[in-house]
Amino acid sequence: MNTIITIGREVGSGGHEIGLKLAEELGIPFYDKLLISMVAEEGEFAQKYLEEMDEKVDIHIAPFLATRSNYSLYQMPVSDKVYFRQAEIIRELADKGSCVIVGRCADYILEGRPDLVRVFLYADLKDRVARKEAMGLEIIESDMTKHVQVTDRKRSRYYRNYTGQIWGAKENYDVCLNTSVTGIDGAVAMLKTLVEKRNQAE
Amino acid sequence: MNTIITIGREVGSGGHEIGLKLAEELGIPFYDKLLISMVAEEGEFAQKYLEEMDEKVDIHIAPFLATRSNYSLYQMPVSDKVYFRQAEIIRELADKGSCVIVGRCADYILEGRPDLVRVFLYADLKDRVARKEAMGLEIIESDMTKHVQVTDRKRSRYYRNYTGQIWGAKENYDVCLNTSVTGIDGAVAMLKTLVEKRNQAE
Repeated sequence: MNTIITIGREVGSGGHEIGLKLAEELGIPFYDKLLISMVAEEGEFAQKYLEEMDEKVDIHIAPFLATRSNYSLYQMPVSDKVYFRQAEIIRELADKGSCVIVGRCADYILEGRPDLVRVFLYADLKDRVARKEAMGLEIIESDMTKHVQVTDRKRSRYYRNYTGQIWGAKENYDVCLNTSVTGIDGAVAMLKTLVEKRNQAE
Repeated sequence: MNTIITIGREVGSGGHEIGLKLAEELGIPFYDKLLISMVAEEGEFAQKYLEEMDEKVDIHIAPFLATRSNYSLYQMPVSDKVYFRQAEIIRELADKGSCVIVGRCADYILEGRPDLVRVFLYADLKDRVARKEAMGLEIIESDMTKHVQVTDRKRSRYYRNYTGQIWGAKENYDVCLNTSVTGIDGAVAMLKTLVEKRNQAE
């Protein structure tokens, strides 16, 4: 049985690392930034612009960018265009076979497929802040706690905007894990166990 | 490392079976109806009465019972007395070592222990109704769907009454599993994997 694992995640909960390790251990593809590259390679949008768009809703970043020439003219249509093109690609990738997809409302886009397992990862705020601090990121906010909270709000708004659902509400997912308790490796092991059980039950 | 696993669960999601199998596979005690017996054995309350009380808040069942002699006089104090005595016993059991405890707000009662893993199990309504129908229970409601929904509401009210928290909101749990997707054995295997990982990490 194929298994398509989508991972929604709070900032700093380890979603990217867990998704990557899980895909490696299962020997299946992992799609994250790569997904965006695939859209970008089609030549319609520049890579850098897409990275700026990544899981932000235009209406939120618009005030900061509106003075750039021409930007405001294209903002809403471009954001939607990126989303719908990504949704199309996500469906194509899922049709190809088992994979792990992080973010991008993939849970919603693929809902109803019998091969789908929708995961949401969360963690205690202090652990998420510590994890991000350890990465040594440059941030524009006053401190890392603020950065984590602001980025969570962007993800939440993006998800609600395109799905009409509440980001992180367990009703929209099949497996929700607090990585402060499971650990990164614990979460990977649990998800791998689930995939193996599904394969056995086939 | 000890692991205390508490299981909250929607009616018909398989929580009892999952908890029992998990405890068996890990070779640790399982507390459910037994817990109530332990309270009852202390002689303060009759077994049958405790079973009636089990995860119902008096204020809800009172209207149906108020005509029974003396009942209304004791309803609130007895319900609270049962809860606080159970909470005390749950803490004593957790102090003894690894175990699985189903229901009874144990997640809330034990919150803050480093050896605690708080699980919540849910499932699609149609699967929960089918599971309960297969058990051939006698019910007072017009159909099994109604029975499942009414019993969920009782559990939700009981939990809110004693914890002030929302029953089933992922923030109050560490692992939330949709057993329609994981299956009974899948959920058992995932939780067993987590306990094994925690033991390795020791």
